[in-house]
Amino acid sequence: MSTPGKRKEVRGMAQFMDVHHNMKGVTADQLREAHNADLAIEKDERVHFERAWADPESGVVYCLSEAPSAEAVQRIHERAGHKADEIHPVPLSI
Amino acid sequence: MSTPGKRKEVRGMAQFMDVHHNMKGVTADQLREAHNADLAIEKDERVHFERAWADPESGVVYCLSEAPSAEAVQRIHERAGHKADEIHPVPLSI
Repeated sequence: MSTPGKRKEVRGMAQFMDVHHNMKGVTADQLREAHNADLAIEKDERVHFERAWADPESGVVYCLSEAPSAEAVQRIHERAGHKADEIHPVPLSI
Repeated sequence: MSTPGKRKEVRGMAQFMDVHHNMKGVTADQLREAHNADLAIEKDERVHFERAWADPESGVVYCLSEAPSAEAVQRIHERAGHKADEIHPVPLSI
């Protein structure tokens, strides 16, 4: 169990929440395909995409990852064909 | 284990991601206090706040909840003293 408000850090890893806009109408299959495209190459940058949540109506998608940097997260998302619009380190979590 | 891209729905419940801006400098203790204030009254609206992530530098806080509606999520956040700036249903998740 993690300490409230403090997540473990492994070898300089941190947690990130990234946000994609303009994904209106995204389907469950498309979300899964996009996530799988990230997972297929994430190890190249020591990133791991843990969770993703989508609102097809407003077109927003949130991805939670563990990574060495925001730049590493973005490199994977770009190579997978879906650059993030925002990437925030989230050092605090519950 | 949940089916990819499809979360269980219990008695008309859905998942929501809400976002708070302007939380620059938020500390682990403050995040915990705010979350506990939500937990203390969430049952009044059949809401459950599951997770929260904060970026003290940009001041953004994300909260993941299960609730009957976005309005129910907002009523709890307002009563707890921290109205959300955005609330998105996230019917798709991985």
